[in-house]
Amino acid sequence: MDSFKLIHQDKNTKARIGKLTTCYGQIDTPCFMPVGTQGTVKTLSPDELKEIGAQIILCNAYHLFLRAGKDVIKKLGGIHNFISWNRPILTDSGGYQIFSLALLRKVNDEGVEFQSHIDGMKHFLTPENIIEIQLDLGADIIMPLDECVHYPCSKDHAQVAMKRTIDWARRSKAALAENREPIIENRQLLFGIIQGATYEDLRKDCAKELVEMDFSGYAIGGVSVGEPKNLRYNIVNLVTDLLPLDKPRYLMGVGLPEDIITAVELGVDMFDCVVPTRYGRNGTAFTSGGKIIVRNSPYIDDSRPLDKNCSCYTCRNFSRAYLRHLFNSEEILGLRLVSLHNVHFFLELMEKIKEAIRLDRFSEFKKEFLSTYNNQ
Amino acid sequence: MDSFKLIHQDKNTKARIGKLTTCYGQIDTPCFMPVGTQGTVKTLSPDELKEIGAQIILCNAYHLFLRAGKDVIKKLGGIHNFISWNRPILTDSGGYQIFSLALLRKVNDEGVEFQSHIDGMKHFLTPENIIEIQLDLGADIIMPLDECVHYPCSKDHAQVAMKRTIDWARRSKAALAENREPIIENRQLLFGIIQGATYEDLRKDCAKELVEMDFSGYAIGGVSVGEPKNLRYNIVNLVTDLLPLDKPRYLMGVGLPEDIITAVELGVDMFDCVVPTRYGRNGTAFTSGGKIIVRNSPYIDDSRPLDKNCSCYTCRNFSRAYLRHLFNSEEILGLRLVSLHNVHFFLELMEKIKEAIRLDRFSEFKKEFLSTYNNQ
Repeated sequence: MDSFKLIHQDKNTKARIGKLTTCYGQIDTPCFMPVGTQGTVKTLSPDELKEIGAQIILCNAYHLFLRAGKDVIKKLGGIHNFISWNRPILTDSGGYQIFSLALLRKVNDEGVEFQSHIDGMKHFLTPENIIEIQLDLGADIIMPLDECVHYPCSKDHAQVAMKRTIDWARRSKAALAENREPIIENRQLLFGIIQGATYEDLRKDCAKELVEMDFSGYAIGGVSVGEPKNLRYNIVNLVTDLLPLDKPRYLMGVGLPEDIITAVELGVDMFDCVVPTRYGRNGTAFTSGGKIIVRNSPYIDDSRPLDKNCSCYTCRNFSRAYLRHLFNSEEILGLRLVSLHNVHFFLELMEKIKEAIRLDRFSEFKKEFLSTYNNQ
Repeated sequence: MDSFKLIHQDKNTKARIGKLTTCYGQIDTPCFMPVGTQGTVKTLSPDELKEIGAQIILCNAYHLFLRAGKDVIKKLGGIHNFISWNRPILTDSGGYQIFSLALLRKVNDEGVEFQSHIDGMKHFLTPENIIEIQLDLGADIIMPLDECVHYPCSKDHAQVAMKRTIDWARRSKAALAENREPIIENRQLLFGIIQGATYEDLRKDCAKELVEMDFSGYAIGGVSVGEPKNLRYNIVNLVTDLLPLDKPRYLMGVGLPEDIITAVELGVDMFDCVVPTRYGRNGTAFTSGGKIIVRNSPYIDDSRPLDKNCSCYTCRNFSRAYLRHLFNSEEILGLRLVSLHNVHFFLELMEKIKEAIRLDRFSEFKKEFLSTYNNQ
């Protein structure tokens, strides 16, 4: 059974709608995956995420491996049971975290040695380990270990990392085939991750090799690492042209509303980003009219909701003045309410995107959305 | 119209059930009021509080006067609108906070001078100001300014504070009568606060004088300030004997489950305490089998809910292992889930208390509850 079904492509752009099927349910694409790094989308409950329409969330295998530990989570019935989320979950391998968060890493072709950012404990992980960890966690979509380089990066270094990523992808696929119960063939969908920094030929080579290996989906990694946006979207545009139409494309760690819209236009189907919850905890709200910093003094007695066009719990019940008060008083409810609003905003944006693609008017939608959004 | 109706008194103790009526709804007593000092019951949303059956919450006039400010809250339509809570609210005058939290206070018969604990700004407040503030906030039950002394306290000092409290109560009543729209006579219920430290004769004098003034209810203040529990309950027992049967009695700032049960037995109807949310944020859960510190290592892979007899969202969905993980990972959802469970536990305790009184078996209930609760 194919896990992904392309439903419609916009007449004038590469934007597309599709449906991704996993054991824990279906995901309408383009989709936004709220990030629950440590097994919780920060400040929000699973019930709240369901109520605002999240179909899938992302957790991080590196973080969960270090704490609470894969054996604990396996004993508790897997990640879905552990965190009480009975919809799809994608686990990121944690390659990015190992290369950015962990200490004293040594990388060789075999795998990665690093010290935990929590307790300094030394670990050595191979692509095979990373697959086993994600199988133990029991996520629906899993990612192979990859080597993610920062921007700027020399071509030599980018090429070594890209070739290693391809080799690790091959080993990951083999490890999955070996470990997987054949009876549930699509229990875990493994995606390939395309690296190659901002070098077009490296990205092309990587995409071609991974497509030949035939993954359930393709991720574009190594973005949002400091590169200029024009270089990023040049790569995205180039890569999506090389990917099969009948597989989902996931742009890792992106991004702001305007970034998501740009990438959808270039044919991307899946997104994740910490922005809605991180900004929410800092008191910055996304609205159809742009961003609002709720702590700012003009809101001191502002009786309006964050966004008059928004139907979320926060906007139905609370004024900007009250949210400002909560942030000034360092009350946790403030972090909750703005995070909830922001994740709702991102999920609703995806609904509007899908509707625009369905009606073959994605370009018009983009223009309309950005003109209101940027008109602060 | 009488705001309080005594429904039934237990055959063998002074425990009683009643109904208190306010403009924003009815409260079944004995009741527990979750504390929302700054206009939010810490970590919880109004919807969650309603779902677990909170009929009334407590806010603090001193805190709200300093921040967000009474003018802001008045402009936003009053405290109920501001915090989006359409059930009864009691505002504490903040006397206790002025005497414990504020800086550089000077007290004289006229009022209190203090510096804000937030920005050091100097304020002078009289009993009349405090009533006006609470009328502007628009709470359903309001408290007069009182002078609260700590334990131990000399009799001379306790007597001065008690006499001042009586004088301020008289002025508060006059201020309310002057300010109140006569058309809504019971819009705000003003309670008298009985002081007198641990001195029986002072407490008696204070109670008698306040009862003569005829308040809508009577609070026992100056408890939970460091005094031994036997002295506290001696005073409570003595005071409730002097109070009219047809007025609610409120024991301020008390307490732990065992404290509430003891005070109900002595004829107290209303309670407030920060314990369920404060303990919740520290990761200590109240259960029918006693307290649980969720961070403790035995819970590392414990798949059981906090309390197998509990029906709250936390216990329906999450294991002790997951809660431990959330606390170890410093995730806000952990603070929320244990706070929610704890407030639910206190509210359910009040339901059980009312049922036991209804059936004239309060003493048996007390014995049963404490035997399970203390059998850790």
